[in-house]
Amino acid sequence: MTQAAETQRALAAAWPSVGELAAPLVAALILDAAMLRIGVERLENGCILVDGGIGVSGSLEAGRRIAEICLGGLGTVNLQTGGSFTRWPAGVAVHTTNPVLACLGSQYAGWSLAHGEGKGSFHALGSGPGRALAAKEELFAELGYRDQCESACLVLEVDKRPPPEIVAKIVRDCGIKAENLTLILTPTSSLAGGLQIVARVVEVALHKAHVLGFPLEQIIDGVGSAPLPPPAPDFLTAMGRTNDAILFGGDVHLFVRGGMAAAADLAKALSCTTSRDYGRPFAEIFKACKFDFYQIDPQLFAPARVAVTAIDSGHTFHAGHFDEDLLDKSFGSIA
Amino acid sequence: MTQAAETQRALAAAWPSVGELAAPLVAALILDAAMLRIGVERLENGCILVDGGIGVSGSLEAGRRIAEICLGGLGTVNLQTGGSFTRWPAGVAVHTTNPVLACLGSQYAGWSLAHGEGKGSFHALGSGPGRALAAKEELFAELGYRDQCESACLVLEVDKRPPPEIVAKIVRDCGIKAENLTLILTPTSSLAGGLQIVARVVEVALHKAHVLGFPLEQIIDGVGSAPLPPPAPDFLTAMGRTNDAILFGGDVHLFVRGGMAAAADLAKALSCTTSRDYGRPFAEIFKACKFDFYQIDPQLFAPARVAVTAIDSGHTFHAGHFDEDLLDKSFGSIA
Amino acid sequence: MTQAAETQRALAAAWPSVGELAAPLVAALILDAAMLRIGVERLENGCILVDGGIGVSGSLEAGRRIAEICLGGLGTVNLQTGGSFTRWPAGVAVHTTNPVLACLGSQYAGWSLAHGEGKGSFHALGSGPGRALAAKEELFAELGYRDQCESACLVLEVDKRPPPEIVAKIVRDCGIKAENLTLILTPTSSLAGGLQIVARVVEVALHKAHVLGFPLEQIIDGVGSAPLPPPAPDFLTAMGRTNDAILFGGDVHLFVRGGMAAAADLAKALSCTTSRDYGRPFAEIFKACKFDFYQIDPQLFAPARVAVTAIDSGHTFHAGHFDEDLLDKSFGSIA
Repeated sequence: MTQAAETQRALAAAWPSVGELAAPLVAALILDAAMLRIGVERLENGCILVDGGIGVSGSLEAGRRIAEICLGGLGTVNLQTGGSFTRWPAGVAVHTTNPVLACLGSQYAGWSLAHGEGKGSFHALGSGPGRALAAKEELFAELGYRDQCESACLVLEVDKRPPPEIVAKIVRDCGIKAENLTLILTPTSSLAGGLQIVARVVEVALHKAHVLGFPLEQIIDGVGSAPLPPPAPDFLTAMGRTNDAILFGGDVHLFVRGGMAAAADLAKALSCTTSRDYGRPFAEIFKACKFDFYQIDPQLFAPARVAVTAIDSGHTFHAGHFDEDLLDKSFGSIA
Repeated sequence: MTQAAETQRALAAAWPSVGELAAPLVAALILDAAMLRIGVERLENGCILVDGGIGVSGSLEAGRRIAEICLGGLGTVNLQTGGSFTRWPAGVAVHTTNPVLACLGSQYAGWSLAHGEGKGSFHALGSGPGRALAAKEELFAELGYRDQCESACLVLEVDKRPPPEIVAKIVRDCGIKAENLTLILTPTSSLAGGLQIVARVVEVALHKAHVLGFPLEQIIDGVGSAPLPPPAPDFLTAMGRTNDAILFGGDVHLFVRGGMAAAADLAKALSCTTSRDYGRPFAEIFKACKFDFYQIDPQLFAPARVAVTAIDSGHTFHAGHFDEDLLDKSFGSIA
Repeated sequence: MTQAAETQRALAAAWPSVGELAAPLVAALILDAAMLRIGVERLENGCILVDGGIGVSGSLEAGRRIAEICLGGLGTVNLQTGGSFTRWPAGVAVHTTNPVLACLGSQYAGWSLAHGEGKGSFHALGSGPGRALAAKEELFAELGYRDQCESACLVLEVDKRPPPEIVAKIVRDCGIKAENLTLILTPTSSLAGGLQIVARVVEVALHKAHVLGFPLEQIIDGVGSAPLPPPAPDFLTAMGRTNDAILFGGDVHLFVRGGMAAAADLAKALSCTTSRDYGRPFAEIFKACKFDFYQIDPQLFAPARVAVTAIDSGHTFHAGHFDEDLLDKSFGSIA
């Protein structure tokens, strides 16, 4: 094992259970369903299904709470007002006690769940603390972390119910009783769905840092924010806006260990503005790529503006910038 | 019944009890009275009277908590700093889980309470969750909502104690035991009073939308903010400032269902800047109207800046603007 | 006794116990140690020692929580984003229910603790609710306040453990059992340390007001904010940054009783920009003074920008300004 991997393993050994920390937040979400205008039902196998915006209106507050569940109970997501954007005063501020565990170990939508083929098929990327229980992704070996917990919660950004086979698979992979599983469905075009996606602004930065090869054990802390994207009825527009909120308005400050040069390189590469695909709304790029995600430059998925503080030397490196015109264009603003 | 009314009734049937949700916040306010520098006493009939700033200094935090009680436990009011106004860094951000219920069903100062005539008379507009228990206003028929709860809390923006007859009337109309009623008095000129009034910035927008005939059942969500007005010793100046905080610095974003045209019309009409009376501090207007509220254009009571997102089409309409010069003038700024 | 002193004594008689209010926050900090990445151990005499960043990484959230403990459970410290500074989007917003008690009675680092001489000596300034239990400082006679509580918590801005003699002295002076004492160590160069220092932005303003002779019993309320300083490995740089965050980016609004002239004078004198030493990073000034604090103009220790509202007349006086260039210079920004 490399020294970096050993350091990471030692860190992870002291990490708390994201499932246990999220459990009271999940219970509160269910208890407050009427207030939050979300749906709750028990499936036949005992699993609890939370509808965040399919057959119900849901609410921004439901999205905010779901985002905190996604962070494994390790962070806060606040709805702020009066930020940097004239037309979009509302935004989310994200802060965690441990960004690597909260964002990559729990919040990242990394668990690929698929069933069937063709028209009736179901595809979703699971996010939230349940991922760390199943630990089906390679990432968990890198993190040296696997949760132990009697309950699981997973968030699926979908606009239809998962088939029983998917529910059964999650229960099996998590190694829990079906009645201890909560699945939260948050359509991208819903109020709650849009909010919980842009609350991934720090996670997006950590994920890109990871892709760039920056050692995760050297990322110590971070905070971020992004404007709240207005929902749109069609999936493509809504999804484009959630990406553009981060691409044109996302702001992240990371605090890292290691040398100045590594921090400088990270800052320079981290902003989405360095991507060859940067410069127009995400939905346009996606169309131009014929709706094939793998044709899009992976460097694009990152915040607009970043600051990286090298805490071992005390220097801070800045890169990127907001683009309010592109934000207005993407967000469907009519003066 | 029209279809809109039926939709509204169906929504309201699922609404939680604002009285029950507010009850623990009221209990905490009383428990923390010393910390918040507010007064608490039991009246002869058993009712609890909270003095938010008559014989005590009170505090901004007391006002913030009272504002959350006014929202029926359905929202948060945060004291933010560093907003849009150079001289007034502090402001409130308001966010609810259900703006129609929280703001119109609870927070709106709509229950007219009067006793006696001439000099010794008492007039107040009751706000807070207790309104939904008494449901004396026509608005509750429109909302299709009536609370059921064993306790009640009402906020009165007054600088003197209500006469026993008013207290008895509230107990009677709410149908509760006197010892389960809490009355909170917040003079307009107090720190707590000013804060809890500007925390009505979203309510003011919803009320104007209602007056304009926009269907309440189509208002799904909303957030808002306003700068904190500095208190002034005389009622007229203090009251003027609380209005001007919203008129010159209020910012609201609503998310509504329905057609684009209706959302565009709402945005255009919603900002106070369209009012014939817009353009000078409220206290001046009020004086010019010889202190007759009914002479003031009802269109004036609205936030400075609004955004309305039509979630069914995904477009957002913007209107209005801040006016920091008028804010400075109203707020008594001396460079 | 003067009338002012009598008024102050009467106010203080109604003040709550900062020790009791802080106790549940201290318990939660210890319980959440793994999540916050801080260390907790029991010393031989039973006292609990919390390591906020000496042998552990700690976190910004740990610093935020420690700052709320320092305020004696009487205030909130929020990590905000998107404030007034282009390169430093993260900042803290501070708000209390009672600024004189929270900031001067608890948060102020006023208890001088020293042991030994020369190289092995230990010097620290204790802050937090435990100060009000020991009440060793003259300030407590002025406040007319002494806490009564069975537990104590003290924060020490140090990078090494206190010697047993200091621990024993604190236990003795607080008059509690050793096992009921919690000492929190927050090195200035740590993430937690930097955050909890700039959360003193309102305290710094109150302390200068006190030095200027403004009567404490006339300070009714206040809010403030400051940008988050990036940590630096060496003490001098880190300490300079925490000061500069307040000197170049601190923003405080106080609400005071008394005459207009007194409020105007306070505002004018309160900003650090009036100091003869204002104009360059704190570390430079400190070096120029040959590291002798007593050579620095005491008027320097104050926020950049202040507003003082005279609530008895309703006027607000403004003074000072931010300086983002000096902030960038101090904070080690590399474009």
